[in-house]
Amino acid sequence: MSDAFSTRWVGVDWGTSRLRAWAMTADGAVLARSASNSGMGGLSRSDFEPALLALIGPWLADNKNIPVVCCGMVGSRQGWVEAPYRVAPTFPIAAGQLTYVEAQDQRISIHIIPGIAQHEPADVMRGEETQIAGLLAGDPDFSGVVCLPGTHTKWVRIKDKKICMFSTYLTGELFSLLAEKSVLRHSVGAGGWDGQAFRDALESSIAEPEKVAEHLFSIRAQSLISDLSRMEARARLSGLLIGLELGGSKAYWDGRNVAVLGTDALAHIYHEALKLQGATCTGYDVEAMTLAGLRSAASQLLNAPYALEAARDG
Amino acid sequence: MSDAFSTRWVGVDWGTSRLRAWAMTADGAVLARSASNSGMGGLSRSDFEPALLALIGPWLADNKNIPVVCCGMVGSRQGWVEAPYRVAPTFPIAAGQLTYVEAQDQRISIHIIPGIAQHEPADVMRGEETQIAGLLAGDPDFSGVVCLPGTHTKWVRIKDKKICMFSTYLTGELFSLLAEKSVLRHSVGAGGWDGQAFRDALESSIAEPEKVAEHLFSIRAQSLISDLSRMEARARLSGLLIGLELGGSKAYWDGRNVAVLGTDALAHIYHEALKLQGATCTGYDVEAMTLAGLRSAASQLLNAPYALEAARDG
Repeated sequence: MSDAFSTRWVGVDWGTSRLRAWAMTADGAVLARSASNSGMGGLSRSDFEPALLALIGPWLADNKNIPVVCCGMVGSRQGWVEAPYRVAPTFPIAAGQLTYVEAQDQRISIHIIPGIAQHEPADVMRGEETQIAGLLAGDPDFSGVVCLPGTHTKWVRIKDKKICMFSTYLTGELFSLLAEKSVLRHSVGAGGWDGQAFRDALESSIAEPEKVAEHLFSIRAQSLISDLSRMEARARLSGLLIGLELGGSKAYWDGRNVAVLGTDALAHIYHEALKLQGATCTGYDVEAMTLAGLRSAASQLLNAPYALEAARDG
Repeated sequence: MSDAFSTRWVGVDWGTSRLRAWAMTADGAVLARSASNSGMGGLSRSDFEPALLALIGPWLADNKNIPVVCCGMVGSRQGWVEAPYRVAPTFPIAAGQLTYVEAQDQRISIHIIPGIAQHEPADVMRGEETQIAGLLAGDPDFSGVVCLPGTHTKWVRIKDKKICMFSTYLTGELFSLLAEKSVLRHSVGAGGWDGQAFRDALESSIAEPEKVAEHLFSIRAQSLISDLSRMEARARLSGLLIGLELGGSKAYWDGRNVAVLGTDALAHIYHEALKLQGATCTGYDVEAMTLAGLRSAASQLLNAPYALEAARDG
C-alpha cells in the first residue's frame, strides 16, 4: 500500500463556504482532487469529520493514520478545533506548530495549519499563510509584496522568508452586499463590464476617498435619471471600492512589483487597477500555491517517525 | 359633514418599508394617525389602494373625493404611479405639480408629491422635499443646510426658498449591511454604545478616509485577538461610516449651523458628530416637518374649487 499510486497524505483547503481536497503521493504529486460546499460556515463541530470523509473516504482504502493537512477557516474558533493564531512577524508555516485533531476514523490523522495574527494594526489571516508558504517554497528569495484578491483581499509584506506585516480589506464582501442587498441592486447588473467606467471610478476613489459614500448612491441616481446601464453600474461600483482599497494600501504597492495570487476575473481586475496606478504585477496560480504550501506543511509530518510508522502500518 | 371634527383631507408618508397616515381637519390639525408595514417595497401596483384603504378607511365615512396627499416612494417607478422628478434647483413643492392618481374608491382623490432630481452630480430624493417644505413653511427665511439622517442620509442646501443642491450618502444602509450581513456581524452588537470608540473612529475616517475599508476589517480582527466588545465594535463601525460621510459632505456643514431633521438615536449621533467637528446644530421633529409639508401641498388642493366642491358634496 505504499506504491507510487497510493494516497500518502491528503491536502485540504477548508474555507468558509468551500471544502477542497487533494489526494497526494509521497513525492507530492496530485493523485485526485475533489470539492464540496461543506464549508466551515455551515458546519457544527460534529459535522466536520463526516463532511471530510464524504469527500476523501474513497482515497483512504484500508490505510491507517493517513496525514490530512488542512488550512483555512477549519482552524477558526467556529471551526473543527481552534488552531491558535501565530503572531507576525513570523514564517508563514513554522515547524512543529500544526494543531493536531483527534479523528474518530483511525484511517486519518488531522493536522491544521494555524492562521497568523498581527497586533498593531489588528489583523488576522487563515489560509493565506499557506499560499504564501507555497510562493516561498517555489521562490525562497522572494522579498516584496503579495496581494491575495478575494472576499477579504489581503496585502502582505514578505522579507527574510517571513510575513512582516499585512492588511485586510473587505472590498469583495462590500461589493457583494452593495450589488446584491442594497438599493444599488436595482441598478447593478450581475455580469458584464465597462472598462472606462471602472477606470474613471478607480481614479475618483483614489483622488477623493471621502466622496465614496456619495458616489455609491449616485450610481442609483444616475440609473434612475439618466439610464446608466447595469453593466456600467457594475464596473463603477467595483472601481469605487477597489479604488478606496488601493488608496488605503498604497504603501504596499506604490512603485513596486506585486505578486498577485489569482488568475480569476477578480485577480485580473486587480492586475488592471495596479497597472493603471503604475505598479507592475506578476500573477500566480492559487491552487498551485495552496498545494505547494500544503506540501511544505506535510513534509514535516512525513519526515516525523510516527507518521512514517503509521503509514507503513497501513 | 364639514364640521371641525370631520376629516377634510388625509396626509400620507409612504416610504419603502412603512406607510403612515394622518386624518386632518380643514385648518390642518391632526384628528387621527395610523401606520402599517405596507411600505412601497412590498406592494405591487394593484396593492396600493387596498393597503391605503385598510389604514384610512375608518376616517372616510360617506365623504366623496377626500384629498389624500402622499409623499415618498409611493411616487417612484416601482410605486403606485410614477410621479416624475422635478429638477433642482427648485422649490421643494411647486404649485400645480402634484401627480393625480385615479382611485377606484370614490371617497378618495389621490395626489402624489413628486420627488426631486439633480443632474450634476446625479442625485434624487422622494419624501425629503416634503419635510423641507415643512421646515420652510415654519421658517420662510431659512437659508442654509439641512441634514436628514436616515438609511440614505441627505444633505441639502437651501437658498431663496429653493433646494439648490443636495447629496445622498447610503451610510445607514452600509451600517446595517455590515453590522448584520457581513463578517462583522460576529463582532458587532445589536445595541449599546461607546462614545469614545465612536469619536476616535469618526476622527480617523475624516483624517484618513482611504483607510476605512482596512479599519472595517480590523473591527473583526480586534474582536478575535483582543476581545473588542460588541458595544465598542458597534460604535466604531458607526464612527467609521459617519466619518467617511462627514469627510465627503464637509462643504455642506463646515463652520455652519445645520438644521438636523430628526430626534431619534441616529439624529443624536449626527448631532454629536457635527458638534465634534465644530458645526452647530438645530434639531427639528420629523413628523412635524412632514405634516407641515403635507399641509402646504394640501393647501393647493383645498383652495382649488373642485376640491372644495367635492368636499361640500360629502
